[in-house]
Amino acid sequence: MTHTVLLHGATGETGREILDGLIDDGSFTIAALVRPESVEKAATETLKEKAIKIVVGDPANQTVDELAALLNGYDTVISAVAASAQLAQFKLVDAAAKAGTKRFIPCGFTSISPPGGVMSLLRGEKEQVHERIWYHHLPYTIIDTGFWYQLSFPRLPSGRVDYATLGDANTFFGNGDAPNLMIDKRDIGRLTARIIKDPRTLNKRVFLHAEVLTQDDIWIIMQGKSGEKIETKRASHDQLIAKMHAARVALRENPTDTMAQVAVWSAEYDVSKYVRVDNTPENARYLGYLDTKKLYPDFRPNTFTAFVDGLLAGKAQRPYQDKYNFLHK
Amino acid sequence: MTHTVLLHGATGETGREILDGLIDDGSFTIAALVRPESVEKAATETLKEKAIKIVVGDPANQTVDELAALLNGYDTVISAVAASAQLAQFKLVDAAAKAGTKRFIPCGFTSISPPGGVMSLLRGEKEQVHERIWYHHLPYTIIDTGFWYQLSFPRLPSGRVDYATLGDANTFFGNGDAPNLMIDKRDIGRLTARIIKDPRTLNKRVFLHAEVLTQDDIWIIMQGKSGEKIETKRASHDQLIAKMHAARVALRENPTDTMAQVAVWSAEYDVSKYVRVDNTPENARYLGYLDTKKLYPDFRPNTFTAFVDGLLAGKAQRPYQDKYNFLHK
Repeated sequence: MTHTVLLHGATGETGREILDGLIDDGSFTIAALVRPESVEKAATETLKEKAIKIVVGDPANQTVDELAALLNGYDTVISAVAASAQLAQFKLVDAAAKAGTKRFIPCGFTSISPPGGVMSLLRGEKEQVHERIWYHHLPYTIIDTGFWYQLSFPRLPSGRVDYATLGDANTFFGNGDAPNLMIDKRDIGRLTARIIKDPRTLNKRVFLHAEVLTQDDIWIIMQGKSGEKIETKRASHDQLIAKMHAARVALRENPTDTMAQVAVWSAEYDVSKYVRVDNTPENARYLGYLDTKKLYPDFRPNTFTAFVDGLLAGKAQRPYQDKYNFLHK
Repeated sequence: MTHTVLLHGATGETGREILDGLIDDGSFTIAALVRPESVEKAATETLKEKAIKIVVGDPANQTVDELAALLNGYDTVISAVAASAQLAQFKLVDAAAKAGTKRFIPCGFTSISPPGGVMSLLRGEKEQVHERIWYHHLPYTIIDTGFWYQLSFPRLPSGRVDYATLGDANTFFGNGDAPNLMIDKRDIGRLTARIIKDPRTLNKRVFLHAEVLTQDDIWIIMQGKSGEKIETKRASHDQLIAKMHAARVALRENPTDTMAQVAVWSAEYDVSKYVRVDNTPENARYLGYLDTKKLYPDFRPNTFTAFVDGLLAGKAQRPYQDKYNFLHK
């Protein structure tokens, strides 16, 4: 009997990396949970080309019993949904408990920060989903990751990396010396494949990373590799905190405004990563996470230097191409 | 340099057990944090008789800086406050972070249940304190315990155990077959002394227990030892759930009513322990707790059978003698 996996969000930004990681691994029978209105979409066609079984279902509009029937027979259920859709996982958790899922992977895949009010929106909602998991005694693994290389490099004066740039990342926060867990997003899937087969990670939190880098480190590598001088803006810690408070107030005034949500996620990330320095191996261990570097010492993640080589060679891909367009209006 | 410990709540129901455990252990220099108005109380006199240093302070009425000055120089700070005073620990946590406390023990010492809405009042408030700890990256150990033998035995028709009875515990919940972690409250201190010296328990949750017993087990032991037939009442799971909802509604109507709080704690304990079956070794491990049975295999906790021998011999003590009096009006 092969290990069967049902992946929710297989065409999303993280989900597609997980799908490729599971396929590369070769030891899983994989299915994707796809909403009825998405079955005919181009993204779903790519799943069919990869011979992934399509399970048509919609956690937002079906009952727990209906969803449980869909989940039945899958050993592992992985949820990789949009940042805005975290609370919509409740029914999926209820269904997994009902179906007797052997391991549920909620949508984590974010930087390390503590439960509570620090990352009040993104982490706050994810932790509510964890509480729902614990409510059911449902077997689980929480997987969080270093921040993506793909979102962390500054633009160059020549414009040669703009093709892969989601939004301007040329602001140096504080002294630029805050260490941060980082990873090439393409490695998330391969590590997830290892984690879900590993009994040591059952009912645990696990963090993935390739390197620990400061902005200073990133600037040195980008300048050294490109031969260009980066145009650097600066923001103080106080400015980051003020921006976060303003973003929270604005969201409270327009709670369903998508851009107001994005602003809170972004500002809370900045404070957590650069002011509080939450996204480190030490803090991850403190918060009870296992470290994939210890679990899988043979795994060779892509280095930031190698990523920059690819970026400068025109081989990188802009994240969220279908969704956001901050630079390329 | 001996290990220095500051104990907050040293004359309370759990605190006094912790104090005795620390004294018995012999390897600590112990101080007690006592409020100004309690310095002259009889309970504080007993601390002085035990040669415990009295540190006069009041987390409710002093600033974080003032409290940090009091905490300065203590390796470990243990908080064992009343169930109603959980959120008053925030300032103590802030002060410990400021003072560089090497290990903070928040007031846990309760049964195993998941974070979230299950034990919405008692666990809910304790988890808010945990979040404050994580906010500061403050080193910690969360210690939870089996339910006390002292609160778990039924009355006998002869009345011979009434002297040690806090409230009637003669109701059989459901089929009486829910396993529960249990412990003699006098063992909490000796195990706490081990835990706070142990590097393996730093930044972890740990659970203490002596035995796993069902109500059926307890009835058999009590009847066998006493030769009396217990007068048993019964409550169904549905009745427990209905009682919990009613208690929550009543507290919402009178949020500062002490007896309404007690009713919520009690009803939520019953649902968690007897309906959900949360208070088990399996669930504790699932929720990430370490097990003192594994950590300290040489430790011999008092058995329930031995506790009952003492109880029938008139040697038990009624808990909360100074505070509540449900049976002995």
